[in-house]
Amino acid sequence: MQNAIIIIIGNEILSGRTLDKNSNFIAGRCSKIGISIDEIRVIPDRVKIIKKTILEASKKYKNVFVTGGIGPTHDDITAVSIALAFKKKLVINKKAKQLLEDYYKSSKFELNESRMKMAYFPAQSKLIMNSVSAAPGFNIKNVWVMAGVPKIMQAMFLEGVEPRLKKGKVFFSKTLKIEKPEGDIAEDLKNLSEEFDSIDIGSYPFYNPPKIGTNIVLRGKDLKLIEKAIKKISNILKQSNILFSID
Amino acid sequence: MQNAIIIIIGNEILSGRTLDKNSNFIAGRCSKIGISIDEIRVIPDRVKIIKKTILEASKKYKNVFVTGGIGPTHDDITAVSIALAFKKKLVINKKAKQLLEDYYKSSKFELNESRMKMAYFPAQSKLIMNSVSAAPGFNIKNVWVMAGVPKIMQAMFLEGVEPRLKKGKVFFSKTLKIEKPEGDIAEDLKNLSEEFDSIDIGSYPFYNPPKIGTNIVLRGKDLKLIEKAIKKISNILKQSNILFSID
Repeated sequence: MQNAIIIIIGNEILSGRTLDKNSNFIAGRCSKIGISIDEIRVIPDRVKIIKKTILEASKKYKNVFVTGGIGPTHDDITAVSIALAFKKKLVINKKAKQLLEDYYKSSKFELNESRMKMAYFPAQSKLIMNSVSAAPGFNIKNVWVMAGVPKIMQAMFLEGVEPRLKKGKVFFSKTLKIEKPEGDIAEDLKNLSEEFDSIDIGSYPFYNPPKIGTNIVLRGKDLKLIEKAIKKISNILKQSNILFSID
Repeated sequence: MQNAIIIIIGNEILSGRTLDKNSNFIAGRCSKIGISIDEIRVIPDRVKIIKKTILEASKKYKNVFVTGGIGPTHDDITAVSIALAFKKKLVINKKAKQLLEDYYKSSKFELNESRMKMAYFPAQSKLIMNSVSAAPGFNIKNVWVMAGVPKIMQAMFLEGVEPRLKKGKVFFSKTLKIEKPEGDIAEDLKNLSEEFDSIDIGSYPFYNPPKIGTNIVLRGKDLKLIEKAIKKISNILKQSNILFSID
């Protein structure tokens, strides 16, 4: 079973200033390549906490996806924290240095000491390249560290992380939407989830009057079984004269 | 120091199907009432995991805010998991039962057995009422359990949770926005953060070409000190001919 945790590093998420969209992107991609996201954590920009969280996560999960804290400023402390976690030195990476030199030579900005910080990684890290920015992310053991800026993070994940991950069996997901509150079909769903216990059957009410209803989501690795369960619940809904759509 | 963890219970977030907006709402409110959110966790709909996570969180943090899993369907297992965590029985709450009976009497829906599940809580829980839906959330020890549906969760937090929380000293936050990459001012920010070490100074680049720049966020409990730091960084930016706006 391929599983993973997503760790979002960033005070700006914890303060409510910024809405985290990175974990949703990574989770969505992982569904498509058969990796189960078992946990998401948002933690502050603090060396001790990052170090401890990464170390525990690396032992517990097959993959650890990390975003944030790899830029040039004083609050970018992810690389040093992970070096400490794995008892590695923080060393300059020649390829990353070259990338930064090439990029800043052709830009109007200066490759100053702060920016050169972005060429330092825990020893034995591999770079995670991307086509949007010059500064790379890095991979060490089962930990994949990406930028916090969504556009850059997404490029890193799609180009530099996903192709190197061990894929699992893809998850299939089907949604039945009804314009009834979930309490009307709770008993049927309970029976269904007992009968199809290898399918994850979720009931998600929505409440935005006048739009009130429920999305019934069936998720699992056996598409035929999902379709069988969909058929069964469709018949029940028809018998109860409840309208539904399938997505 | 008033601190808290937010625990989001929901497979739909972990699968990437749904973007969690509840933690952002709670975090934003907590900033305004001086409660520091030290961690956010998203965990699956699994009794064992919910039980363990709540128990640990309840010991570690002053407040534990939980959303999700309190509806009428088979996947709503938050109340039973928390009862197990605190070794309490799951008991019917007369007031909640009355609320449900009143609501369903005047609605076109039936108060069936599944819906009656929403009147059961860990013994000694207090109800969290809200003006949007009939079914209440609950509070036990330092744990506050709210609905997963954003509109209902928000009503519960604002009406039934926030008024009962012990407030801390409010956080003030000021943002300086520049249209330069953060590497240009990293050295200055480092010095500033060392000089003003009781202020949390964050540097948040944005990258949506042609919009490229940095938000410098100063956050802390001493407004005068923040203003002093803002003045200092403003002068530095002026000297470097970097345009900025303050928010």
